[in-house]
Amino acid sequence: MTSTADRLIDLFATRVREVTPPLFGAAGEAARPVISLAYGLADPDLFPRAELMAAAAEVLAYEAAESLNYAMSYPGLTDQIVERLRAEGVAAQPEQVLVGYGSGQILALLPEIFVDPGDVVIIEGPSFLGAVKRFLQSGARLVTVPVDEHGMDVAALADVLRRLAAEGRRPKFIYTIPTFHNPTGVTLSLERRRQLVALAAEYGVPVVEDDAYLDLRFAGEPLPSLAALDQEGWVIRVGTYSKILAPGLRIGWVYARREIIDRLLMVKAEGTTGPFITRVVARFSAAGRLERHIAALRQHYAAKCAVMAAAIRRHFPAGARFLLPSGGFFIWVTLPAGVSANALLAAARTRGAEFLPGTACFAEPGHGDDAIRLAFSFQSSAQIEEGIARIGAAFNDL
Amino acid sequence: MTSTADRLIDLFATRVREVTPPLFGAAGEAARPVISLAYGLADPDLFPRAELMAAAAEVLAYEAAESLNYAMSYPGLTDQIVERLRAEGVAAQPEQVLVGYGSGQILALLPEIFVDPGDVVIIEGPSFLGAVKRFLQSGARLVTVPVDEHGMDVAALADVLRRLAAEGRRPKFIYTIPTFHNPTGVTLSLERRRQLVALAAEYGVPVVEDDAYLDLRFAGEPLPSLAALDQEGWVIRVGTYSKILAPGLRIGWVYARREIIDRLLMVKAEGTTGPFITRVVARFSAAGRLERHIAALRQHYAAKCAVMAAAIRRHFPAGARFLLPSGGFFIWVTLPAGVSANALLAAARTRGAEFLPGTACFAEPGHGDDAIRLAFSFQSSAQIEEGIARIGAAFNDL
Repeated sequence: MTSTADRLIDLFATRVREVTPPLFGAAGEAARPVISLAYGLADPDLFPRAELMAAAAEVLAYEAAESLNYAMSYPGLTDQIVERLRAEGVAAQPEQVLVGYGSGQILALLPEIFVDPGDVVIIEGPSFLGAVKRFLQSGARLVTVPVDEHGMDVAALADVLRRLAAEGRRPKFIYTIPTFHNPTGVTLSLERRRQLVALAAEYGVPVVEDDAYLDLRFAGEPLPSLAALDQEGWVIRVGTYSKILAPGLRIGWVYARREIIDRLLMVKAEGTTGPFITRVVARFSAAGRLERHIAALRQHYAAKCAVMAAAIRRHFPAGARFLLPSGGFFIWVTLPAGVSANALLAAARTRGAEFLPGTACFAEPGHGDDAIRLAFSFQSSAQIEEGIARIGAAFNDL
Repeated sequence: MTSTADRLIDLFATRVREVTPPLFGAAGEAARPVISLAYGLADPDLFPRAELMAAAAEVLAYEAAESLNYAMSYPGLTDQIVERLRAEGVAAQPEQVLVGYGSGQILALLPEIFVDPGDVVIIEGPSFLGAVKRFLQSGARLVTVPVDEHGMDVAALADVLRRLAAEGRRPKFIYTIPTFHNPTGVTLSLERRRQLVALAAEYGVPVVEDDAYLDLRFAGEPLPSLAALDQEGWVIRVGTYSKILAPGLRIGWVYARREIIDRLLMVKAEGTTGPFITRVVARFSAAGRLERHIAALRQHYAAKCAVMAAAIRRHFPAGARFLLPSGGFFIWVTLPAGVSANALLAAARTRGAEFLPGTACFAEPGHGDDAIRLAFSFQSSAQIEEGIARIGAAFNDL
């Protein structure tokens, strides 16, 4: 007689017949006895614990009936998101915003509504593979456009779009992190932003603007978001409270045309996002608290970025090059010729430090072994200094 | 030139080309100036606000780094769920439990992993349409098995399984609410439980045991859950904190074979459930607080059920019949011959009261206009009395 497991396997829907490994993790990694500069975790010292406690207490004291019973996501949080979007020049309406359990959920649902197996999705190389792997899981065929010091190479994108159009293929969307890009830290120039939005309209291809780090600018002047430049509704703007408040609350959002929001709701299995947690975030964010908190974060992350940059200059060999980011969580270092990121990682781990090798940021195998991503967000300044010193020493072990 | 909307529509994946209306709601309904006995909302007077506030404060005071950063669902909550399962005789392991954003999320993800369009899913009639509509959305072909005063008619189920097997069709799962059934309030007898589990193993068909109300027993002795009777792993047990703590926290769970848990994780877009909210629930539930709270809920809901039953006897015509439930949230009333539930609803609304007509509990049109579901969970005893009196008066308006 066959086992239950064997008999069960036949029942699974086609899309999950084969098990793929979970796409999340990172948690607990930082607890290892190495100084990890690998992940873009938030700095726990900056969690506004007292204010969050006050917000939770207020919700339970004044809004228990609305926040603890069956209810939709708190509309007041959506209103706050709309207000922030309008402040940066986006003509957002509340019905164009959907709150989700982290921007990761939104990025995982977008391929659900756009991608049938074999459809083309355009990504940046390098990119945030947490999102890209979800595109792959939905059956997307990825086409990669390179990123340089001014962000996505929009001329290369234009070539890709032209070529695909000639083949009769219309990509389902273009995924970009235009501001303080993950992993490179670069920001898409204004000129290229305009070109990207124009290309989206010309070819009728949505642009998924993942602006997780937008608010964490500590140098230079803000640039308009793609959503602010967009006149026709091709930009899907994804945002999150993970970088500006706390990832563990799991609150992100998407702003897009209503047709897209409606369909995201169809595939968001649990319906809208919980009334309790959305009210806690809104209570915290009210009365200018979120903006004051962001201002403090900017200063703090700027200082840690400067510490890391100085440590890299001190400890890394001269051939290692990087662009100082104006915001975000990461410094991307191009290694001296002939140094392998993965070989360096093995040596660094032996010395008690780690980073993300560039190979973990490209969808295609064989790319990125010449670069590493260093997160200055999580570790203290002292640990950053020590971690970079250890990696610097690891260069000599190769 | 075609509009952006027209050009966008072509891009959507096949499964979301047509927009379906949202499947959730209920929120806000209770705020209407009618006494609504329609929805199984929790009683806000019973929310343990002070204990939840203490739990949230403790999490933020002692576990901020773990609960506010990127992290997996709190394993301690899974351990508590495993412990409760073991206490009722289920040999559960932590890796067989997945915590979700409400049992509604789990019930929406199950068809994602089992159903390819055209596959058969067996449901009860009547049933909880919030789940059933999700099965339909995944393309399932529904086969309904009737429910009587002892729960699902398992002999009828055996006939259905035999017939389908003869046609070469193997159903993907059987969806049942065996304890304090929604909407009828009935409980599946022990004899039928044994038969159902045996049929599942014989035909190799999983049973989705939605036991949302299991802990809210206020009369009679507990029966073993299907999961406790199951020796081969065909039962998928779905549970929730919505009925025993607070729906607005959005915490539910599923216990099943590891093959199923692995695949649910593949389609749970956001990964595991947030570390903050899972820690708050676990802190609240610790040290016997959850069990003490459940004991208080049982007493309270028993009293409200008795108030509703007495009011029905007083205000409804003699031809209206109901079985007094031993737990849960609902009384199901079969109307006197010739009385239409929907006609009665229109009259009741005019008089300022509402209920769920039986037609909203059957997947097939044309069923259920002879019965109504009355929820005693949400309204106060005084409102229950007044609401039933108004509905009773509405009978005379027909």
